Amino acid sequence: MSITGENLIGASAVRGTGESFQAIEAATGEPIAPAFGGASLEDLDRALTLASEAFGTYSETDLETRAKFLETIADEILAIGDELVERAMAESGLPRPRLEGERGRTVGQLKMFAGVVRDGAFLDLRIDPALPERKPMPRPDLRLRNIPVGPVAVFGASNFPLAFSVAGGDTASALAAGCPVVVKAHPAHPGTSELVGRAVQKAVAACGLPEGVFSLLFDAGRIIGQALVADARVAAVGFTGSRAGGLALMKIASTRDVPIPVYAEMSSINPVVLFPGALAARGDAIAKAFAGSVTLGAGQFCTNPGLILGLEGDALDGFVAAAGAALSETPASTMLTPGIHAAYEKGVAKLAGHAAVKEIARGKPGAPTAGQAGLYEVDAETFLADPALQEEIFGATGLVVRCADLDQLSRVLASLEGQLTAAIHIDETDHDAARSLLPLLERKVGRILVNGFGTGVEVAHAMVHGGPFPATSDGRTTSVGSLAINRFLRPVSYQDLPDDLLPAPLKSDNPLGAPRRVDGGAPAR
Amino acid sequence: MSITGENLIGASAVRGTGESFQAIEAATGEPIAPAFGGASLEDLDRALTLASEAFGTYSETDLETRAKFLETIADEILAIGDELVERAMAESGLPRPRLEGERGRTVGQLKMFAGVVRDGAFLDLRIDPALPERKPMPRPDLRLRNIPVGPVAVFGASNFPLAFSVAGGDTASALAAGCPVVVKAHPAHPGTSELVGRAVQKAVAACGLPEGVFSLLFDAGRIIGQALVADARVAAVGFTGSRAGGLALMKIASTRDVPIPVYAEMSSINPVVLFPGALAARGDAIAKAFAGSVTLGAGQFCTNPGLILGLEGDALDGFVAAAGAALSETPASTMLTPGIHAAYEKGVAKLAGHAAVKEIARGKPGAPTAGQAGLYEVDAETFLADPALQEEIFGATGLVVRCADLDQLSRVLASLEGQLTAAIHIDETDHDAARSLLPLLERKVGRILVNGFGTGVEVAHAMVHGGPFPATSDGRTTSVGSLAINRFLRPVSYQDLPDDLLPAPLKSDNPLGAPRRVDGGAPAR
Repeated sequence: MSITGENLIGASAVRGTGESFQAIEAATGEPIAPAFGGASLEDLDRALTLASEAFGTYSETDLETRAKFLETIADEILAIGDELVERAMAESGLPRPRLEGERGRTVGQLKMFAGVVRDGAFLDLRIDPALPERKPMPRPDLRLRNIPVGPVAVFGASNFPLAFSVAGGDTASALAAGCPVVVKAHPAHPGTSELVGRAVQKAVAACGLPEGVFSLLFDAGRIIGQALVADARVAAVGFTGSRAGGLALMKIASTRDVPIPVYAEMSSINPVVLFPGALAARGDAIAKAFAGSVTLGAGQFCTNPGLILGLEGDALDGFVAAAGAALSETPASTMLTPGIHAAYEKGVAKLAGHAAVKEIARGKPGAPTAGQAGLYEVDAETFLADPALQEEIFGATGLVVRCADLDQLSRVLASLEGQLTAAIHIDETDHDAARSLLPLLERKVGRILVNGFGTGVEVAHAMVHGGPFPATSDGRTTSVGSLAINRFLRPVSYQDLPDDLLPAPLKSDNPLGAPRRVDGGAPAR
Repeated sequence: MSITGENLIGASAVRGTGESFQAIEAATGEPIAPAFGGASLEDLDRALTLASEAFGTYSETDLETRAKFLETIADEILAIGDELVERAMAESGLPRPRLEGERGRTVGQLKMFAGVVRDGAFLDLRIDPALPERKPMPRPDLRLRNIPVGPVAVFGASNFPLAFSVAGGDTASALAAGCPVVVKAHPAHPGTSELVGRAVQKAVAACGLPEGVFSLLFDAGRIIGQALVADARVAAVGFTGSRAGGLALMKIASTRDVPIPVYAEMSSINPVVLFPGALAARGDAIAKAFAGSVTLGAGQFCTNPGLILGLEGDALDGFVAAAGAALSETPASTMLTPGIHAAYEKGVAKLAGHAAVKEIARGKPGAPTAGQAGLYEVDAETFLADPALQEEIFGATGLVVRCADLDQLSRVLASLEGQLTAAIHIDETDHDAARSLLPLLERKVGRILVNGFGTGVEVAHAMVHGGPFPATSDGRTTSVGSLAINRFLRPVSYQDLPDDLLPAPLKSDNPLGAPRRVDGGAPAR
């Protein structure tokens, strides 16, 4: 497949007349051909007109058609072949195995949502039959289903050029819900984006769906993204990126004439709590695993373990020494973009420059675009006194906070902003102490994990990749896993509709065979 | 029970040191004893400290305890006896049968949520068991449950002194979710509020729950309500009231350091579409039913049918004449407050003063505090050209929009803001035309009903009392029915937790017996 640098607007490929830009090879900083024509506001308008027109038809596609569509996207992505992986490697600097894995994850995610669509439970069908004889008032017939909210704007993320990008989790869940999607590609991987976008475009055509179900727009600046969120035709927004970016979109969305939800996954330092029993029993092993997790993908994960809490003592000293030793052996890794690298360097310098922060180790230095790992430590009182110490440093650096006792450690946790994950490392002897902290952790995070690290987010039914603000803009949701579809649905109730006017899932003979709750009972087909 | 005019802060009754005020008898405009001491900011702080302290314990109450608590509130409300109805009658001007019905609804709602709690489906329990042998990576054990979001602020509504007030739907669903509640009483019915608040207070004590589970604050101004929404300890807000009030709270909530969701049910004119077949067959009967619905409770319902759409012709003329005749016989009804009455008069005067709007009928005049019914008509082109004509007039007035044809009627519907309900009146011969409008209606409203009117909102599992902005601030939710509990929940995922650290609902032997989805399958106990 050749990459042309065109915007994909419905079934068309259109060279944008806005400012053009090129992808940058992450490892070298060299531009990669071709040039991408930034979308104009007219291009955006056309994409949204098509999306609006497509919504009526697409929202009422039968479940099998919609599931097949998601599977076809998956097939088309695989059909691109190695060109996709190579282009993503060049644009992101991420290594081949990671990108092959990410492709598998992206395809698997689309297939999972195909299963969610076929199952039909996401429709939350409910029927409260009429009770004409009820006193003092008869009860009407009430039926409920979830409907899609409307066209959804999705922003590609820099750090997952496949799984959180053009056909990533936001797009997959919005399409599964029945919403057309307009993607604003991340300018760090436009070629990867175009390849995947063309795969989706092919799937739309192959499945006979209205072209407006999907469009892909390029812009190296902010105009198109901001206009997309501000447009009255957009019903919801999916975003993974920086806190500043997410907050800017939230502000646009909340000050529209009609405010809309923004599902922004923004910033998290993912505390790791090391309990004494576990540290004593296997501090070295935990330290090595930590070093592996914090440097994975150059530390460019939303779930990167950036904060480690432990109790003062020999065991913690040993952990710090072992983690420092492991990190100091870690080669520097190419970061996603020069901008991300610069922000990382700035964040590390700020941390290192803090009077009370001590450097434990730095990883090996590398090329100018490569992020050098880092490990620092600070005492809990200092951490508690300075909120700046809990700012996310996006990259392979961790901060150990030395706590005097469990009470102080608990106060450190209580001082944290909302997080995506918290990990606790425990042995049998730590269970009581861990149990006492769990209620606090639950209020702070979307996922609690034991004896592991948050990197590696399983695409599953019981996954929450979310968490209280500012980890996300909306802690009631997840952007990974089957529950992510709920972000793009809303319930509608139908009262006393004759059967021929009811939507298919609610007709009396249940032609879809989807599970339905009658009078609030267990769902049955 | 004696009404003291005190704030109920946890288990205490405290005379507020803020500005004091008295209830006003709706029918006469005379003050009713006693004086209520407005809460101070210290009172608010104390209530929120108690709520925060109670959250940990209350959020983990076992389901049976929580269900019993809701039932005990219901019993305690009934135990107040006729004093409650009489006080509510005096304060609201609403008639006895309505308030007795509303008390039944309030009690029934609490009992329904007790059932929802016992059932446990609201926890959305999910288990994806570990797959240690999976290649290339093992799958961890993942379990998910919903947890309550934290203390909830509830604003009593003027128009439902029981069912949308101190122990109304917002409070019942928040308590069912496991959230402590701090209610800001509506100043139009403070005595009713105190009586119900004391009933809740008794139930808290009787069930041995921490006192901070419930507090009730009075303030005739805005300071306490605004400070409540701005306070970092509040996790969500439930509100039913004016658009201006809801928007003000949304603004406070979205500009906090940590933004929180506001569930505001605000304004709706609830379009009614009269199809030709139905009009021809039974126009007079529909007209009489409409006149009954638009004047019910002095028209002070969120679901009041304020907009009637029909196609020009004899049948519509007949409907208008019959509805006008019925309305002109309707006595004026005491409105809830002098302020609401004044706003109604102003709204009607503005409508009547519109050059292209024609008065069809006025109801009988009445006391100075009574709302006089009204029916007006306008042509569709004028309506389409003037958005001011779709502003809600809170009271017993309707506007008929005469449409040339179905296409124009459809454009009128498309021009509407989000609504709580839409009603269509149809005969067999109208089904095709109705079917063509349903997709448009679904995008505009939370509930579609056939051959009825939106007033009378069933408390049920399949009810949606919600709708796109500005009907509500968050069209993904409902404030009536069992789904309302979802507003106060968020999911948490647990990865690889040993069984003894898992929360009870997720332990391997399912001690709660609540339904759980394993690997995304059907929920099973």
